[in-house]
Amino acid sequence: MSHQVMISTSGSVLLPPEAISNLCSNLIPLATLLTPNIPEAQHLLLYYTNPGVLPTAAFPIDNINSMADVVDLAKRLQEKCSSAVLVKGGHLPFLSDGSVARRQKGKAFVMDVLALSNGTVKIFSSPYIDSNNTHGTGCSLASAIACNIGFSQPLPTAVSNARDYISGAIAASYPLGKGSGPINHVHNIYRRPYSKGRFFDYLINHPRVAKIWNDYVNHDFVKKIANGTLSTENFVWYLKQDYLFLIHFVRAKALLTYKGTTMSKINECSTNLSGAIRESALHVRYCAELIPGLTEQDLESTPEAPATTAYTRYILDIGHSGDIAALMVSLISCSVGYQVAAKNREKEDSSVRTSEGNPFWKWIEEYASDKYAEETQVQRDVLEKLAEGFGVTQVEELVEIFRKVTEMERNFFSAAVEAKIP
Amino acid sequence: MSHQVMISTSGSVLLPPEAISNLCSNLIPLATLLTPNIPEAQHLLLYYTNPGVLPTAAFPIDNINSMADVVDLAKRLQEKCSSAVLVKGGHLPFLSDGSVARRQKGKAFVMDVLALSNGTVKIFSSPYIDSNNTHGTGCSLASAIACNIGFSQPLPTAVSNARDYISGAIAASYPLGKGSGPINHVHNIYRRPYSKGRFFDYLINHPRVAKIWNDYVNHDFVKKIANGTLSTENFVWYLKQDYLFLIHFVRAKALLTYKGTTMSKINECSTNLSGAIRESALHVRYCAELIPGLTEQDLESTPEAPATTAYTRYILDIGHSGDIAALMVSLISCSVGYQVAAKNREKEDSSVRTSEGNPFWKWIEEYASDKYAEETQVQRDVLEKLAEGFGVTQVEELVEIFRKVTEMERNFFSAAVEAKIP
Repeated sequence: MSHQVMISTSGSVLLPPEAISNLCSNLIPLATLLTPNIPEAQHLLLYYTNPGVLPTAAFPIDNINSMADVVDLAKRLQEKCSSAVLVKGGHLPFLSDGSVARRQKGKAFVMDVLALSNGTVKIFSSPYIDSNNTHGTGCSLASAIACNIGFSQPLPTAVSNARDYISGAIAASYPLGKGSGPINHVHNIYRRPYSKGRFFDYLINHPRVAKIWNDYVNHDFVKKIANGTLSTENFVWYLKQDYLFLIHFVRAKALLTYKGTTMSKINECSTNLSGAIRESALHVRYCAELIPGLTEQDLESTPEAPATTAYTRYILDIGHSGDIAALMVSLISCSVGYQVAAKNREKEDSSVRTSEGNPFWKWIEEYASDKYAEETQVQRDVLEKLAEGFGVTQVEELVEIFRKVTEMERNFFSAAVEAKIP
Repeated sequence: MSHQVMISTSGSVLLPPEAISNLCSNLIPLATLLTPNIPEAQHLLLYYTNPGVLPTAAFPIDNINSMADVVDLAKRLQEKCSSAVLVKGGHLPFLSDGSVARRQKGKAFVMDVLALSNGTVKIFSSPYIDSNNTHGTGCSLASAIACNIGFSQPLPTAVSNARDYISGAIAASYPLGKGSGPINHVHNIYRRPYSKGRFFDYLINHPRVAKIWNDYVNHDFVKKIANGTLSTENFVWYLKQDYLFLIHFVRAKALLTYKGTTMSKINECSTNLSGAIRESALHVRYCAELIPGLTEQDLESTPEAPATTAYTRYILDIGHSGDIAALMVSLISCSVGYQVAAKNREKEDSSVRTSEGNPFWKWIEEYASDKYAEETQVQRDVLEKLAEGFGVTQVEELVEIFRKVTEMERNFFSAAVEAKIP
């Protein structure tokens, strides 16, 4: 790949005649594609027609009066040299009726003409962009075409994609310095704000989330479960509401399973679903131990608290309106948060075990267990795999979903501590 | 930001004593944060304690025997100099039980210790990564911390995020050249394969799509409508099946409207929905003109052809399992394809107008109309806006959805041409 500017945008001939002669005799025969602008194409055509009389000034562009003239120029130059020719018409905008725009007003499109060595011609047109930031456009176009050829794209595709890239780079440019500014080469490059495998950590450490997450996993409610100071009434209130929560949590996991479009994702989501059903059975047993005679039907007929309705229906709506990633993020704060909350309590000196008379300790044991850790790890692994492909907008949306469900988890615990049982 | 390697990974002291003296007297007092490795921290601490006796070789790292020793080192050095200190323990991996790993086997984690000038200490640990590609790790960490400080992150957050970035860069490195390879600085950078506003063009020009798209928008079925050579029976067959198609197409647009989570998206999707309902009314009128007496009920009771069932239920499943972008992509091949197909026929010499006796020409007029163009433009604009935030995996999935629906559009037209009406 080589890019040599022969005549500048302002019309100066930048190469002496001997250099042009050398270019035409030695370099161009080796080229796959020439990318002259209109004056350069005219200059080269003249050399090939009559090498003795090369002018020292550029041709005036105003002898090109139509799209057909540009096509003709490209075809004639291509016939003279062996390589393909892309005549760049960036400095010759057209009006929407296809005539040459001689004034700024009404400039509608620009066109480049590709004349291939098999005699066919391809015209590329694109909307005219009014911008001074076009410095390096020609070099960048030639480089982009060369890269696309390197990606095994056929020449017309390579040119078309390179033109799209350059249009985007001009449209996204910033006016830097004085005069013509540079085009923006990185206009379609993005940075994900987390490393591979660290999306969940990114979520919990996000400035909008960190405090809420900490309030949730170190909530007074969990501390009172761990040190046995929660009232049995409040624990039962929680177990009943959490049972109602689990009904919809399990429904959401069924919806998640539906959204898994490969058998491995379906399998992982369904394992997760089974885990949540088992968790709900555990709640029935806890309740029956604390209030002898309490049945599953009693649990199901408990009136749903506002915190329970808000949280569960929010998750289900995410499930209906969003994709598998959104639903997974809406579910994972609960799953992993319970694990972290229980694990944190295991380490605390103030914790009171079952053997020391804490009737609630088995709740801690359940969520700090290796079995539960395995289940949450499967969910985290699926999410981290998905996160390798997230786009920037998606990441922002997922942070907001995670923030909101984490807040609702915290509020759910608060409601459980504060519930006034008659 | 300045990063000066004082003692290399291999243990060589890279700065002469005078330079270290200068560093400590003149440069360090200006620093926000020092980021020494363990031998460098020991060396600096010795200078501050007794400037006269600086050794020329590095301290052996094996006098550090526990995590507490590293914490102690960081705190002592921080007390001597005014800036915060991050002692980097990358060369001192620990076993999972928290003891120093003296052999390769069992290396579990590494830790860095941040001692802040307010006397608090923060420990960062991360899994040990077995890699030789750690060239430039220290420089990159210091630069990343400086950048994060530039983003107004508090020092502990800046350090934590920089460590995540560096871990990701080591994990994603390639072994280049000989010896320690470089870390991969661009591990969380990705490129969208289209420029802003060009996502739809990217879809139709995609190598997996281009031919199918061309077969669809220039299908014999549409050419026969345009030149009036289609049999009335086949046109009626198409109108009936397309009426059945529109029922589910409208349902899918209702689902799309549900998935719009801002009032402006909801409004745009709903306009689109109204357009599709009006389109279905047009079908009833066409049919009634061609087969006098045919009613809407007759249309609804037409048996659904397999091509109709396949296409409509595929779209609805995308709607249920995917997000708004996936559903929009599954709908737009139909909307824009009809417009392109009709517009292409308007330009053709072989086309036969209504005034020239073509009873089907109004179909072309409808889809080539300005009103229809406006409706498709709204959809394209919404999609292009969404496309600015797509991730790489998402783009791949959307291409496949678009390919599949375009193929089903083509098959639907083929079924209409080939239908044998008894």
